[in-house]
Amino acid sequence: MPLILGLDPSLSCTGWGVVRCEGSRLSHVANGQVPSPAGGALSDRLAALYAAVAAVIAEHQPDRAAVEEVFVNKNGQSTLKLAQARGAVLAACGAAALPVTEHAARSVKQAVVGTGAAEKAQVQAMLRVLLPGAAIVGADAADALAVAITAAQLPPRW
Amino acid sequence: MPLILGLDPSLSCTGWGVVRCEGSRLSHVANGQVPSPAGGALSDRLAALYAAVAAVIAEHQPDRAAVEEVFVNKNGQSTLKLAQARGAVLAACGAAALPVTEHAARSVKQAVVGTGAAEKAQVQAMLRVLLPGAAIVGADAADALAVAITAAQLPPRW
Repeated sequence: MPLILGLDPSLSCTGWGVVRCEGSRLSHVANGQVPSPAGGALSDRLAALYAAVAAVIAEHQPDRAAVEEVFVNKNGQSTLKLAQARGAVLAACGAAALPVTEHAARSVKQAVVGTGAAEKAQVQAMLRVLLPGAAIVGADAADALAVAITAAQLPPRW
Repeated sequence: MPLILGLDPSLSCTGWGVVRCEGSRLSHVANGQVPSPAGGALSDRLAALYAAVAAVIAEHQPDRAAVEEVFVNKNGQSTLKLAQARGAVLAACGAAALPVTEHAARSVKQAVVGTGAAEKAQVQAMLRVLLPGAAIVGADAADALAVAITAAQLPPRW
């Protein structure tokens, strides 16, 4: 019954979600968000993010982790913030020896909704179907659960 | 006699250098490079980088740290790799409660050579003058020492 930790890194609010997959059956374990108030020093915010992800891993003991692929967007400063947050989050995964898979945004929509062109609202609606009863704390946690579900659908030997 | 840790983050080889500043007098303490062979998983490479920087901080107990400002260059993938490495490095600084200052590349050249338009070779030549006897292990360590020297020249209340 492998547990998969999905992560949606961001400097302002990183989402995470843990799902259990037994064969093709999925169930929700936990989800949460790590807010990081603007205004603190970048190094302090990144350290808090690293510590929060390490704590989630220590508590839930996932077998592997999954994140969305990152891309460079037109706003260079946003890209840099995101990538630095991602660096801290992935370092925490690596420190726990978690294998990490990366998934294109399109693949996540395909896996959750069935079409790579799905809207965010459709993804969130499908999460309620796929993980019934899960109390999803916010949009970032929802994104993290969606990427965990995507990883759960990978063939066994990914 | 504050110790300043300069860092030149990069995924393939992060440079670091520690200088002591007593008033306007600088001296070299140590420098090194953290190579990270390509081919490993990104999360493992970032975890190793975080651990290496944490070990340097634990050994030398610097009072503060300094990095160059990062900018988005034309090669998006290079920018993402650099920013993720920077995220892991800064998280390690934050975890040790080190204050971190950021310095524009031009300010580093100005501080070390006296002109913001200096060439890399001039920076390295001046490092040999400013830190006599230092055995600098490579170009990345040299860049790290240069940014540490820049931070040492900040006014006391930066």
